[in-house]
Amino acid sequence: MLSDREEKTAGLGKFRLESLSDGIFAFAMTLLVLDLKIPIGHEGDLPQTLFGLWPKFLIYLVSFLVLSVFWVAHHGYSHFVKKTDRWYLWMNLLFLMVVVLVPFTTDLMGDYPHNPLAVMIYGININAISLTLYFQWAYATDKHRLVGGELEADVIAKGKRRILIGFVFYLCAILLALYNPALSLILYTIIPICYVFPSQIDSHWTHFHD
Amino acid sequence: MLSDREEKTAGLGKFRLESLSDGIFAFAMTLLVLDLKIPIGHEGDLPQTLFGLWPKFLIYLVSFLVLSVFWVAHHGYSHFVKKTDRWYLWMNLLFLMVVVLVPFTTDLMGDYPHNPLAVMIYGININAISLTLYFQWAYATDKHRLVGGELEADVIAKGKRRILIGFVFYLCAILLALYNPALSLILYTIIPICYVFPSQIDSHWTHFHD
Amino acid sequence: MLSDREEKTAGLGKFRLESLSDGIFAFAMTLLVLDLKIPIGHEGDLPQTLFGLWPKFLIYLVSFLVLSVFWVAHHGYSHFVKKTDRWYLWMNLLFLMVVVLVPFTTDLMGDYPHNPLAVMIYGININAISLTLYFQWAYATDKHRLVGGELEADVIAKGKRRILIGFVFYLCAILLALYNPALSLILYTIIPICYVFPSQIDSHWTHFHD
Amino acid sequence: MLSDREEKTAGLGKFRLESLSDGIFAFAMTLLVLDLKIPIGHEGDLPQTLFGLWPKFLIYLVSFLVLSVFWVAHHGYSHFVKKTDRWYLWMNLLFLMVVVLVPFTTDLMGDYPHNPLAVMIYGININAISLTLYFQWAYATDKHRLVGGELEADVIAKGKRRILIGFVFYLCAILLALYNPALSLILYTIIPICYVFPSQIDSHWTHFHD
Repeated sequence: MLSDREEKTAGLGKFRLESLSDGIFAFAMTLLVLDLKIPIGHEGDLPQTLFGLWPKFLIYLVSFLVLSVFWVAHHGYSHFVKKTDRWYLWMNLLFLMVVVLVPFTTDLMGDYPHNPLAVMIYGININAISLTLYFQWAYATDKHRLVGGELEADVIAKGKRRILIGFVFYLCAILLALYNPALSLILYTIIPICYVFPSQIDSHWTHFHD
Repeated sequence: MLSDREEKTAGLGKFRLESLSDGIFAFAMTLLVLDLKIPIGHEGDLPQTLFGLWPKFLIYLVSFLVLSVFWVAHHGYSHFVKKTDRWYLWMNLLFLMVVVLVPFTTDLMGDYPHNPLAVMIYGININAISLTLYFQWAYATDKHRLVGGELEADVIAKGKRRILIGFVFYLCAILLALYNPALSLILYTIIPICYVFPSQIDSHWTHFHD
Repeated sequence: MLSDREEKTAGLGKFRLESLSDGIFAFAMTLLVLDLKIPIGHEGDLPQTLFGLWPKFLIYLVSFLVLSVFWVAHHGYSHFVKKTDRWYLWMNLLFLMVVVLVPFTTDLMGDYPHNPLAVMIYGININAISLTLYFQWAYATDKHRLVGGELEADVIAKGKRRILIGFVFYLCAILLALYNPALSLILYTIIPICYVFPSQIDSHWTHFHD
Repeated sequence: MLSDREEKTAGLGKFRLESLSDGIFAFAMTLLVLDLKIPIGHEGDLPQTLFGLWPKFLIYLVSFLVLSVFWVAHHGYSHFVKKTDRWYLWMNLLFLMVVVLVPFTTDLMGDYPHNPLAVMIYGININAISLTLYFQWAYATDKHRLVGGELEADVIAKGKRRILIGFVFYLCAILLALYNPALSLILYTIIPICYVFPSQIDSHWTHFHD
């Protein structure tokens, strides 16, 4: 018979899932920089050539920031998860499947920054990441399925709200692209910056151990 | 003299093997997306250009799904393994060697989706992954060589059956490609989807710790 | 109520942060070699073709060395950190953001080794890594925020000094590039070599456990 | 004051070093497959086109095998190491620096399989990996610097011999390339296969814990 503690932690551990996730995030973040290429044979006008890269460079920064926001979020939510099951693994894999698309949609927007369709696809990619993260958290916390019983309902709700707010703001930015892609790009940059700042949920981190 | 518990866990740990496997899976999954490239200079007909990518996109999704199925399977089987030896390491490396080929065979099928040979090679790649996974499990569980003595014969047999069923279905899909490559592609998509659903083996996860 | 030991280690663990960092360093270090390409169809004059690669090869070695120096440094500092918070995670992500740029600035300097701008950008990249590492350490150790209370003020100061010395030397090398890019390159090579040698800080490693 | 056990394990842990190594090995192994490219527009003669890839495919297999041999070796030696110091970290980084070159030298040999220089460079790369691994082991075990005091001198000597034997055989294969590159290639394939088989050193794995 298993003891109380064992029953809580038995099942497939979350370690390898986090390891796969960290690998995929590391790879996707590094791939972004591959799009920054200097054409050879511009010795004379190197300053201008480099200066001409600034939109690509900005988009690199934004995508790195966005992926970082989701990595921090995934880290923060996963922190409360005590075990995993097959559905949870698959929700994570769905999440990673859309994370992996970011270098592709980043390239697309980098090549066509004035095209509403390209800008909208980027935003849809980001919101797909948000949604798959939301479902993970909702599934793991529903009836405390995969989290400790001591996790307050309040923390669970805050975690959901935090994702949904970003989702709604990005949705607005996506629709805005139909009228003004440049404005969408500015919103795409501002929204993740807001997520850098500490939130109420952080205070709960200190009560649980990894 | 080693205590009981020590004898069980002594030998090279499985940790680094899982770490290498997770790294290779993470890279192979992310490499798949590199094949999704938008030709530059299609500002006018971007919708059509993107729409024309759908077969590549579908094949990306299928390959990500297939690799995910095998990652979950590897995770699930490795969960019961308590230690490793040189043969087991090498069976795993053989498994990884064919996993790494997936981006190559995916590209091949993505470029020639109507060619029986290209479609068959993809299926053979998948079945080579299945076989090397099967041998790992058979070797590790034979006389409880690398798994705990408390693992029931029933779980071992279920684990084998689960791999072999997929193998047989894929074999049919491979042979079908000689007559109808499109139908093979559909089967290639449906079979891994079936593996997303929980199986009998999952209930045993809860009795062992990672 | 948490015990003393728990209070020290509670909060998000540093494990996943180190895992992401190791993944990004591994990837960035391996990407460097992608720039070493042999043109096809030079069977006859292969020795000369390969010999012509030596500046790129040297720059590969220097960048691998520089990234290694920072990986060892990050490893050494992170060793003393007991827990993380959101700001610390973000300082690390900023650090990784500039680490990821190294393959890009390496390519740039490899293509234009005589151009002052290209050589300066490389040095600025390296110093941006130094600065973000410095802020991490300063933030973590300020009032022993994220490190153990037993860490001596002396070790903290040595850790800061060690980064700043490299920063100042690199700054000189950057400014020198305006007059003599070749000399800058030589300094870029010598400075990281000095960091290979053991420092006073190493003796403190033995008093703490990972 | 530290207890006996603590004194043995204090110092920078080996965990992150193994994590970085696993990441670099995973990446280098996956990069090998990038060289397998099918030219587009060969629908008609796909069988011949694919058949023409066999030398590249064989070289992919050999390089994957060689990297696997070194990964298993690194895993096996690192198993006995209890702690690390700055010199040991740097010896490992030197080892990784030459591991990362394998995709480059593999490409070179794949493009010029009949050229003695290309074949020799590949072999020199492999022997550089051997040497850096040898120095790691010699440094770590010298006066039991980084390994447990209970490690028998016999195991240490066997570990050294095992590396040196491969080094000598590869040296012969390298020199042979001056007269017959094809024969070198065959030796390059046979030597790592011999390393797949269990060795005397494996029996010692069971007495230590990871």
